[in-house]
Amino acid sequence: MREFRSIAVIGVTGYTGFELATLLLHHSDIGKPVFYVRETNGVHCLSELFPQLRGWGEASVKPLSVDTIAQSNAGTAFLATPHEVSAELAPKLLDAGLRVIDLSGAFRSASADTYAAWYKLPTPHAPRLSEAVYGLPELYADQIREAKLIANPGCYATSVILALRPLQEAGFLASGHTVVCDCKSGASGAGKDPRRDLHFVEVAGNFRAYNLFAHRHTPEILEHTALPESRVIFTTHLLPIPRGILSSVYVTLAKAQTPEEIEALYRKFYAGRSLMRIHKAGSLPEVQHVVKTNFCDIGFALHVDGKRLVVVSCLDNLGKGAAGQAVQNLNLTLGLKERTGLV
Amino acid sequence: MREFRSIAVIGVTGYTGFELATLLLHHSDIGKPVFYVRETNGVHCLSELFPQLRGWGEASVKPLSVDTIAQSNAGTAFLATPHEVSAELAPKLLDAGLRVIDLSGAFRSASADTYAAWYKLPTPHAPRLSEAVYGLPELYADQIREAKLIANPGCYATSVILALRPLQEAGFLASGHTVVCDCKSGASGAGKDPRRDLHFVEVAGNFRAYNLFAHRHTPEILEHTALPESRVIFTTHLLPIPRGILSSVYVTLAKAQTPEEIEALYRKFYAGRSLMRIHKAGSLPEVQHVVKTNFCDIGFALHVDGKRLVVVSCLDNLGKGAAGQAVQNLNLTLGLKERTGLV
Amino acid sequence: MREFRSIAVIGVTGYTGFELATLLLHHSDIGKPVFYVRETNGVHCLSELFPQLRGWGEASVKPLSVDTIAQSNAGTAFLATPHEVSAELAPKLLDAGLRVIDLSGAFRSASADTYAAWYKLPTPHAPRLSEAVYGLPELYADQIREAKLIANPGCYATSVILALRPLQEAGFLASGHTVVCDCKSGASGAGKDPRRDLHFVEVAGNFRAYNLFAHRHTPEILEHTALPESRVIFTTHLLPIPRGILSSVYVTLAKAQTPEEIEALYRKFYAGRSLMRIHKAGSLPEVQHVVKTNFCDIGFALHVDGKRLVVVSCLDNLGKGAAGQAVQNLNLTLGLKERTGLV
Amino acid sequence: MREFRSIAVIGVTGYTGFELATLLLHHSDIGKPVFYVRETNGVHCLSELFPQLRGWGEASVKPLSVDTIAQSNAGTAFLATPHEVSAELAPKLLDAGLRVIDLSGAFRSASADTYAAWYKLPTPHAPRLSEAVYGLPELYADQIREAKLIANPGCYATSVILALRPLQEAGFLASGHTVVCDCKSGASGAGKDPRRDLHFVEVAGNFRAYNLFAHRHTPEILEHTALPESRVIFTTHLLPIPRGILSSVYVTLAKAQTPEEIEALYRKFYAGRSLMRIHKAGSLPEVQHVVKTNFCDIGFALHVDGKRLVVVSCLDNLGKGAAGQAVQNLNLTLGLKERTGLV
Repeated sequence: MREFRSIAVIGVTGYTGFELATLLLHHSDIGKPVFYVRETNGVHCLSELFPQLRGWGEASVKPLSVDTIAQSNAGTAFLATPHEVSAELAPKLLDAGLRVIDLSGAFRSASADTYAAWYKLPTPHAPRLSEAVYGLPELYADQIREAKLIANPGCYATSVILALRPLQEAGFLASGHTVVCDCKSGASGAGKDPRRDLHFVEVAGNFRAYNLFAHRHTPEILEHTALPESRVIFTTHLLPIPRGILSSVYVTLAKAQTPEEIEALYRKFYAGRSLMRIHKAGSLPEVQHVVKTNFCDIGFALHVDGKRLVVVSCLDNLGKGAAGQAVQNLNLTLGLKERTGLV
Repeated sequence: MREFRSIAVIGVTGYTGFELATLLLHHSDIGKPVFYVRETNGVHCLSELFPQLRGWGEASVKPLSVDTIAQSNAGTAFLATPHEVSAELAPKLLDAGLRVIDLSGAFRSASADTYAAWYKLPTPHAPRLSEAVYGLPELYADQIREAKLIANPGCYATSVILALRPLQEAGFLASGHTVVCDCKSGASGAGKDPRRDLHFVEVAGNFRAYNLFAHRHTPEILEHTALPESRVIFTTHLLPIPRGILSSVYVTLAKAQTPEEIEALYRKFYAGRSLMRIHKAGSLPEVQHVVKTNFCDIGFALHVDGKRLVVVSCLDNLGKGAAGQAVQNLNLTLGLKERTGLV
Repeated sequence: MREFRSIAVIGVTGYTGFELATLLLHHSDIGKPVFYVRETNGVHCLSELFPQLRGWGEASVKPLSVDTIAQSNAGTAFLATPHEVSAELAPKLLDAGLRVIDLSGAFRSASADTYAAWYKLPTPHAPRLSEAVYGLPELYADQIREAKLIANPGCYATSVILALRPLQEAGFLASGHTVVCDCKSGASGAGKDPRRDLHFVEVAGNFRAYNLFAHRHTPEILEHTALPESRVIFTTHLLPIPRGILSSVYVTLAKAQTPEEIEALYRKFYAGRSLMRIHKAGSLPEVQHVVKTNFCDIGFALHVDGKRLVVVSCLDNLGKGAAGQAVQNLNLTLGLKERTGLV
Repeated sequence: MREFRSIAVIGVTGYTGFELATLLLHHSDIGKPVFYVRETNGVHCLSELFPQLRGWGEASVKPLSVDTIAQSNAGTAFLATPHEVSAELAPKLLDAGLRVIDLSGAFRSASADTYAAWYKLPTPHAPRLSEAVYGLPELYADQIREAKLIANPGCYATSVILALRPLQEAGFLASGHTVVCDCKSGASGAGKDPRRDLHFVEVAGNFRAYNLFAHRHTPEILEHTALPESRVIFTTHLLPIPRGILSSVYVTLAKAQTPEEIEALYRKFYAGRSLMRIHKAGSLPEVQHVVKTNFCDIGFALHVDGKRLVVVSCLDNLGKGAAGQAVQNLNLTLGLKERTGLV
């Protein structure tokens, strides 16, 4: 039997961290994960924090210490921590020789200005920004394989970029027209901290828009679609479901296309990408088909004029939108098939 | 005590018909409603069909007969029936001297072509199309007061038209730019007939788009916003909630505006309209605030460039989007305040 | 037009308080309610706290002061406050000459020991305990009409007592047999304060039991069913719905009965009680039929042995289980029909 | 690499059949499953029926034919078919030399009378009733390993039997006292066929009891707890969630016990059973912790009198309550660890 290096996971109490734990504990081709938290409160075993893990997901919980991690057998550290904590820890873990996969937004942009403008973080909020690779494997697999610091993308951003990039690279987008990204996410995307507006009674039976023109995933979308800010509207809405994102992306095409041409474009662009599923023209993805998977499903409807196109992109905000994509990135760095342990 | 003429309601088994029944039974300034159905199956009292009405909502159920209705004391007939049934019954009821408020789509357009193209109905599917008044009181109150045949608007159409009309009339919309209407509705909008895709398990935890570029409310939207088909994208999505619509409407303005100007435009346009609620700039409506009401709530977010505008329009698809609006129309014809019995 | 005395409502920020506000604002036969809160934070109007009230539910918000209330026109004060606050305020308001309807548990038992044992409150936690009338109108309407201090019952307790009392008074319950009350409530019953276990993601798709053998509604149930503690098991479960209670109550009958006899017993016991709805034998109530009403619906299934009986009792925890029942009590004190303003 | 015999699955269109497909397609230690349906309608591949399987769950769909199955490499056939179909097919498949695991109720009782009384099936509805082994591995693992025909238990029955059997075998239950089983299930338990009462709008926000004293799982519960019918009340309720069962089981103990003794009893009874999780005294299971697993979680609350006991038993109706348990049974027959492929 192969000997695997272990995995260090920092931060496991949020929804993303727990999802990551679940995926890593199921993963057969990696070493045993060890979980590090700021306050152990006497807990030694992950199932003490999460009773649903009893019987299959026993794992160690240890007090967070970069030294302890550095001296462990771990080759990779995941950061499922707030931006500020990731900004502080990632450089130290890199210095200690670990590969770092950060699930926060702390390293998603190379530009310190982004953080001042969109995250309201001080400038510079973190060293080594420029070393980070944006961890979207469908676009940047080669760089990810070699990366020491991987910035795992935002959930909304993943769904929108994967919908737009093929159109953009092919030059299909009519210049001068606004691209509208109307995105809807389940409530786990808002985090686990108790908040009045996330109380069950406030979300069930409700639906609302939030953070218009102010969402932090905006700069990622702009950077990786190469669209100017002036041509994009990106809005976010809260769905009364635990998990899942559906983004409806509206574009005007430069010249008329057929549905077959659009489908062919996506199929060719994502050929060989095992976690992209392109729908046939006339069929649309839905959230229930991607929840608890690492797939991004893409479908579309094209007006008979051949120019007005709606692309519908669907993924699980905790899966392909966060923890699943982080594991996909891990797989690339380890030379494994990218969907190992993911479906 | 005043003597009221009674109300005839045809079709009460669907969600819209039942909502209408509830509103009419609570309404204090009208006569007692009588309910007519194709097959009574031995039922004489509405609470035999709907046990939740026992104790407060007793009303007669009778076999459907235009003659019976004509000979009753009824002055108004509501049609909560399928398009085809409304098309057949409305002219007969009009001939019998009743005012007709039709909740189907059968009379929403004056053009027979609309029905061939969007409803797949034979041409002509109904006589007297041209006599119908589109029952959107915020736009056409004067005509509604005098109308003999009122075509109650579609739920999505109501939310979109009320969002766009002030901008359009003011000339704020930049020509050449596509208007995107991304609409989401609760499941009661899909009707009460059992369908595999409306099974609880298929809707709960799910979200999906449907009927892209094919929804029957499209011609209403085009006609009452005066936008050409080539400039509009209207999409619909199924929310995992029983009732409520939220429409996110994306427009580009012809020249830069301030949030105050946008708010002022809406306030002025809807001045005196008691069922419109305009949000302050920076505040957005949400579905839970309109469910079980007859309000249409409108809010917006304006980009700092002053030109990219998102209008969010919220209503209850069974309230302002159907039965509530029908009662609002009734109130106008009876010379009552338009929100009598509605909030 | 009659001149009504106004109504003072203390505490409006919770789910019960808001429901009470909604009912009072719709009530046509009472004076205008005024709302008192500890911290106004500059708010003067209720719709500033609750945007869903704009356009129909404008009412004054004032800083809480017993003196202000005493000098107002108010004849009745509602307390929608925590137990400790009610314990402190009710005697002062009584001294100021107001009638008090308390929605907390502070006065539900005449025995100070109950509060030490079940509420963990100091003894005595409140003066004037013995003056309170338990505000369950189906049992105590005469006392309620004359009461100065009304202790509005608990939601679970209401559903269980109304199911058991007819059987108990008729001597139908076999001695020596345990009565099992398996109760399920929507999440608004747990209050509005943000709590991790009430986060949407933790409640949606979930179901769990809680507070077994420790729920504070136990002493009410025992006192008003006259059952000894040793013969009752009362359990509570959290439903993934915003509102509604369904209690399944299991009893063994002393001698065999027919379904017709059971139905007749309930019908006779609740004859004239306009807010009780007894189902026919073989038909069962469901939560959706009582939500947003003040009804308590009762149905049952009787084993063919005539002795094993399941009584199913359904109500809205915010309606008949709290605010609606408080208004029903108000109506009695004002000499109105008890369901005025309630259905 | 080992050569596995393939698996035949008959019936895949329902929720149970699809769950079974998902589990078998993920299972690493069995041969490729082949799916047989009455009407293929031109479909050859499972992902044509279920788009969510694209990209990972490709499998053959063939027209149902016992001959085809008999001539295939299959060693085991699963029947995810209605009772009547299973009754007809199982004997033929047995005759063809296959092992049969039937997920319907057709073989759950050895007594033909049960089927007349509870299932309204003609007598005898199926040959070879007496050969079937009840597939509850925690009780009958030895017989299951050798069985040719396995009757997979009902979902409710599994949850109740696993809660009661340890108490019953230990002689803890007081004679003469009724055992109350108040069970609640998610909507997938009601099947996938469109029904008005399973429409999203009728289930969301609702809760109701159904089938009181008439549920088909009753005879299983009686047979495998050895309780007389006269001492059991078993009720079922519909939860507004897609999947999961929670059963609250109420018993009176013959003599007073401590919580530690109750916990020890369960731990000892289920020692070595890897899919049972016993909660510590004072901690209770919840549905969200078992959904999409094959665990049955059991917790309890004991009154301080030591005699009134509430046992709470939780499982996934599609997992341990149906498809998962069927795979657990398969594992036993193949000599695999019983949870292979299940967590």
